[in-house]
Amino acid sequence: MNRLSALALSLVSVLALPALRAEDGMWTFDNLPLKQLKEKYAFEPGKEWIDHVRLSTLTLGGCTGSFVSADGLVITNHHCTRGSIQRLSTKDRDLVKNGFVAMSRDQEIKIPGLTYRTLMAMENVTERVAKAVKPGLGEKAAAAARAKELDAIKAELEKASGLTYDVVNLYQGGETWMYGFKVFKDIRLVAAPEIAVAAFGGDYDNFTYPRHDLDFSMVRVYENDQPYHPAHHLTWSTEGLKTGDLTFVVGHPGRTSRLQTFAQMKYDRDFGIPTYLKGADRTRALLEEYGKQDAEHARQVQTLILGVNNGAKANEGSLMGLKDAEAMKRIEAAEKALKAAVAKDPKLAATTGQSWARVEQAIQLQKGYLKEAQYVGAARSATLGQAQALVRLAEQQELPVEKRLTEYRSEGGLKTLKTRLSGPAMGMMGQAANPELETLLFTRGLEDAARELGPQDPFVLAILGGRKPAEVAKAAVEGTKLNDPAVRKALVEGGKKAVAESTDPMIVLARKLEPILLRLRKKQDDVKAILEEHGARIAKARFAVYGKTLPPDATGTLRITYGAVATYPANGTLQQPFTTWAGLYDRHFGWGGNEAHAYGGEWTLPQRWLDRMGKLDLRTPLNFSHAVDTTGGNSGSPVVNRKGELVGLLFDGNIEGNAGRYYYDEKVNRSVSVDARAILEALVKVYDAPHLAAELTGK
Amino acid sequence: MNRLSALALSLVSVLALPALRAEDGMWTFDNLPLKQLKEKYAFEPGKEWIDHVRLSTLTLGGCTGSFVSADGLVITNHHCTRGSIQRLSTKDRDLVKNGFVAMSRDQEIKIPGLTYRTLMAMENVTERVAKAVKPGLGEKAAAAARAKELDAIKAELEKASGLTYDVVNLYQGGETWMYGFKVFKDIRLVAAPEIAVAAFGGDYDNFTYPRHDLDFSMVRVYENDQPYHPAHHLTWSTEGLKTGDLTFVVGHPGRTSRLQTFAQMKYDRDFGIPTYLKGADRTRALLEEYGKQDAEHARQVQTLILGVNNGAKANEGSLMGLKDAEAMKRIEAAEKALKAAVAKDPKLAATTGQSWARVEQAIQLQKGYLKEAQYVGAARSATLGQAQALVRLAEQQELPVEKRLTEYRSEGGLKTLKTRLSGPAMGMMGQAANPELETLLFTRGLEDAARELGPQDPFVLAILGGRKPAEVAKAAVEGTKLNDPAVRKALVEGGKKAVAESTDPMIVLARKLEPILLRLRKKQDDVKAILEEHGARIAKARFAVYGKTLPPDATGTLRITYGAVATYPANGTLQQPFTTWAGLYDRHFGWGGNEAHAYGGEWTLPQRWLDRMGKLDLRTPLNFSHAVDTTGGNSGSPVVNRKGELVGLLFDGNIEGNAGRYYYDEKVNRSVSVDARAILEALVKVYDAPHLAAELTGK
Repeated sequence: MNRLSALALSLVSVLALPALRAEDGMWTFDNLPLKQLKEKYAFEPGKEWIDHVRLSTLTLGGCTGSFVSADGLVITNHHCTRGSIQRLSTKDRDLVKNGFVAMSRDQEIKIPGLTYRTLMAMENVTERVAKAVKPGLGEKAAAAARAKELDAIKAELEKASGLTYDVVNLYQGGETWMYGFKVFKDIRLVAAPEIAVAAFGGDYDNFTYPRHDLDFSMVRVYENDQPYHPAHHLTWSTEGLKTGDLTFVVGHPGRTSRLQTFAQMKYDRDFGIPTYLKGADRTRALLEEYGKQDAEHARQVQTLILGVNNGAKANEGSLMGLKDAEAMKRIEAAEKALKAAVAKDPKLAATTGQSWARVEQAIQLQKGYLKEAQYVGAARSATLGQAQALVRLAEQQELPVEKRLTEYRSEGGLKTLKTRLSGPAMGMMGQAANPELETLLFTRGLEDAARELGPQDPFVLAILGGRKPAEVAKAAVEGTKLNDPAVRKALVEGGKKAVAESTDPMIVLARKLEPILLRLRKKQDDVKAILEEHGARIAKARFAVYGKTLPPDATGTLRITYGAVATYPANGTLQQPFTTWAGLYDRHFGWGGNEAHAYGGEWTLPQRWLDRMGKLDLRTPLNFSHAVDTTGGNSGSPVVNRKGELVGLLFDGNIEGNAGRYYYDEKVNRSVSVDARAILEALVKVYDAPHLAAELTGK
Repeated sequence: MNRLSALALSLVSVLALPALRAEDGMWTFDNLPLKQLKEKYAFEPGKEWIDHVRLSTLTLGGCTGSFVSADGLVITNHHCTRGSIQRLSTKDRDLVKNGFVAMSRDQEIKIPGLTYRTLMAMENVTERVAKAVKPGLGEKAAAAARAKELDAIKAELEKASGLTYDVVNLYQGGETWMYGFKVFKDIRLVAAPEIAVAAFGGDYDNFTYPRHDLDFSMVRVYENDQPYHPAHHLTWSTEGLKTGDLTFVVGHPGRTSRLQTFAQMKYDRDFGIPTYLKGADRTRALLEEYGKQDAEHARQVQTLILGVNNGAKANEGSLMGLKDAEAMKRIEAAEKALKAAVAKDPKLAATTGQSWARVEQAIQLQKGYLKEAQYVGAARSATLGQAQALVRLAEQQELPVEKRLTEYRSEGGLKTLKTRLSGPAMGMMGQAANPELETLLFTRGLEDAARELGPQDPFVLAILGGRKPAEVAKAAVEGTKLNDPAVRKALVEGGKKAVAESTDPMIVLARKLEPILLRLRKKQDDVKAILEEHGARIAKARFAVYGKTLPPDATGTLRITYGAVATYPANGTLQQPFTTWAGLYDRHFGWGGNEAHAYGGEWTLPQRWLDRMGKLDLRTPLNFSHAVDTTGGNSGSPVVNRKGELVGLLFDGNIEGNAGRYYYDEKVNRSVSVDARAILEALVKVYDAPHLAAELTGK
């Protein structure tokens, strides 16, 4: 009954109700919601089932994959290997555009630099670590003792198993685990569709459903130059799914913010996200202003606009969720229940009783500098941003470590930063530098700051120095040499002296602005410290009260979630649970086909797909929508049925799913997966690769 | 320069801007926006083009149709002839379910009771009528003089032309026209698809897009037992449409409320529609409560729930529009501009200067009885509603005509009412009476009234009489004999005496409630009078200021509107401008096909359509979305291209289009039409009716 008081236990059934809903949750493998599964779905997975799906799954770093053959074949999303496929492409061999299928093992292409890992073992070391901290130790000594014990455990476990172990903190420190991984480093590309089919609908259709994406790719894991034979791999389902069928998703959800206080969510709803969206609107308007000049200008900003829209779309989805009165009422009630439980427990009351009030105070502070945080910075100039980073680096590294801003404290962090600052010149969103666009953005950024902060604001005074925005921007963009990596490298290496002596107009501006920026940063850091400290206290109290009846927030570690294939209400009607090949062609021809090349060709199809249309069974399910609780990091996750067989491949969520950052709502939050049947049929009928289909189905 | 002062004219260009947008408007045929068409689309229709599309169009009474062959073939929506098709069906021949195609002319089935009309002539009689009113006449004498002159004109015109003339008031009396019609009474059914295809997706997909409905039917107009040969019929386009193509819709939009004041729209947004939706939520909840008992109960309320949802959907769409901050800003600005123009013109200021304030006052009064209007009535009992109508009829017809409520003043109105009250027993929404459901609804209706109005409210005191809601409801529903039409007929015929002596519990309740209901009605009538009077004054002022640069509100008369085939943003992405046969099959199979029979089978397909799937060119456009300004009454309207050829058949709008009640927004308001190509292909490949295709294409 670890850290769970008797009082707390007795409260669980009553208090947990407002927050607990059946399908909610990304569960850790040591703590599956077996009771709910049994009650709602009459499903009782045994240890064997649980181990099987876990051991078949891989973390790809930011994505998930799974073994699907005895010969080490791994399936994941196309968008999870896209970077690799891009790197394997050459001028004459565009694997992203044209796709790739290895017709035999010797055609499989090694992908350098990849590391895949399977979670083989999980040890709860909470008590052992706790015991290592002798009573009476100070905070620092206790931390050191904990770290020492963890190092010792890691060494022991690795020696005994040959695995690689990571420390995993769950429930904001409520539990500490050691996760042991088998690591694979020889990964080879086996198959990938054309990007036009894998990401059909592009950024427009991203985060939406109904959807028609064949978002899969296959690689093979090798060991000692031979295909690896995993002890577990997922069998390819021959039955397929239908509406209402129970599905499980095994994967590595990255981050959720569901333990934020109600006040923080309201802040996000009323200030945080609206401010973000207002900024995105402004950015879009500026890019459109630039693009209006002619077709070439329009082309230059097209990808940038899509990027802005994509970020805005995710945030609009989250905002929609925060505006759902019913959901917000539920969240408020859950918080009230937790507060009441804390108030009744003297120990919890002492540590956490004031935490909600402290968070509220921090939010008030945050509101106080909302406008400042928006306009005090690089005024939309990417180069000024780099100049500011150079100036800050030079100053910070001269300080004693404990006086530096956090990101300048570790040697590793400094090294990464220096490498980045000495790299190729970058414009907005990491694209190639574009002085004409930057001049416009910088000018408008300065105009906005002057208008919003007022002409007497110290930042405005410092950056304009009495000149007009257009003048300042033009002079700085034209005069700077920072687009030359060598120039930046010299400043990185030359340190404080070099930066102090630089006459580069961007560096000159950045030097003048640094004290102003640091003052703002100080205010932000103070707020962040309060939010982190009291956020952690609240999370710990939540764990103390509810224990493991609620799953921990996503942390990028392996989780399993479950729910049925299901429709949901949207766009005035009910969405169809499956889409089919017919839907892919409908959307293609509905946009006028390749001839129309609508919106930059987002709904075009490779000629091969038009030629093979008649061969496909158009009724085959392509994508489906299911009520499972997933988020970024789940990409490529295997979707399995009750038998533990592979039935799909998760690749996205609907727009309503973006509310999952704050809460899971089974009414409308849907994950979107590729149906396994479509993958198999495409391999045979479009890619002429029956050998791969045979390997997958074991036939 | 009829009623348009020089001052007003000079204001037009400046003031009209906020309200005027290019695609806005359901234009009358005497006043096409030729300038906009030329500027935006380089299109200049001549008199010939305009007359041709007008003379090819028919009003079907609530729907629109068009001649599509020299032999009097008329095309319209399936949902426009559905009632007729239902009446032509027998137990052994279900034409609604199975569809119908006449394989030769002698198979065409006569539909009794239909009247179709074509607008052949339009005369502006404004000045002639004005002249007939001699200066110095009192209001009543003036009205009589106007009516007499109109009768004279009608007689003259009808004698000269052989047509049937109607008086048409436009711009709230700003213009008076005589519209002359050729009338057809011999209409025969030629072809209709199965309802499953015509209304694929049923009430769920209603008001939505992407859509997949083959919503057409064909009838033939006969004269003297021979096919009628119209002077004009629309040629079937052989080219078809593509995205961006200009379309025109000719039809009879029924009603819009775009001339409401900004305050009225805000009232609808903040009170009117939310109250409606709250009521719908409650109704749905009650029906679900009833349906929860078992499958048979669920079946009984299924159609009722869909009806509730459909009404709610339309209102949600309107509400969404009223919550569009940008649009509301535009409407407010337009009103401000009109107010300023009125203020500057002494004559207008005298009649209309106070009108907006008066409307605001009326809205305040309306708010005052909002709750009363919701709960004082029949408390969800259909039978009590009928009893109330019987009691009121008995009392009203005893009064002198001028003291009666308006709807009891004309003999025709009384006759219709009496016929209705003597007809078959009806439950909720005109369905068959269902005492069990009614008892539940009545009980909950009484509970709601008692809770919301309070136990001391006169209505609650009168209807409950100290008893419990369940008791009152049970006794009244069980004790009433009003479900027997003969009993009601006797009360209708027995008049005041029979009603006063009746001991039927519903009549007893209704007698007790009548004075309370009349008090509420009086308040509502007072408000209505203010809104109508000042609404008309404002509309007249608008006509005085802007003249015919703005189109009049829809009045059910013939209009033309135009706009391009276009995508629009919804559901997180851009909607495809066309859907195809492939999309029909995608949605069918995506819902699990006929096997799954999902949601009562709304997405099932007739076997014939599954058998013929391989014969169809799946790329053929089925429906399309275009930016034209239409509303109810436009159903069945021909969609024509620049050449005046038929390219589609309008049948619905997207959910965003419901905002069209208040304003037209070309960004998202879309009409949804059947593509002519799909109709032609279905006739040949599914219905084996090449003879009809040949008649349509003239081949």
